[in-house]
Amino acid sequence: MPKSVFYHAGCPVCVSAEQDILTLIPSEQVEVVHLGTDKSKVTEAEKAGVKSVPALVTPNGNVLHINFGASIEELK
Amino acid sequence: MPKSVFYHAGCPVCVSAEQDILTLIPSEQVEVVHLGTDKSKVTEAEKAGVKSVPALVTPNGNVLHINFGASIEELK
Repeated sequence: MPKSVFYHAGCPVCVSAEQDILTLIPSEQVEVVHLGTDKSKVTEAEKAGVKSVPALVTPNGNVLHINFGASIEELK
Repeated sequence: MPKSVFYHAGCPVCVSAEQDILTLIPSEQVEVVHLGTDKSKVTEAEKAGVKSVPALVTPNGNVLHINFGASIEELK
């Protein structure tokens, strides 16, 4: 089964959402990407349709923007 | 285990997010509330901290606002 990808940037809103998401979704079904420390993934996230973090990209390619931590533009 | 509550209002954004959420989280762990048809729950949602739908209130009381379908004010 393809994994979801949770993109975040280490901000308080992101960390809080990450803890919630990882409580709700089995951890082996979610890959966590920190865009603040892994800038090379910002383009990948943007291509996936991520406009702000935290965001969860589901296995079928939908993007769930969760609350609002930071704009993807701020992470470039 | 306390359930999460997914509040929505039947809008396209909500329905899309609902399908994703219910794919990711075991359905027996999520209660789905349609605020468009069950207006009596709007106050409950607001007290839980829901400001827009779709939103997921986690068992520990955190509110994850997912994308943006409608403001809670529009549902009163």
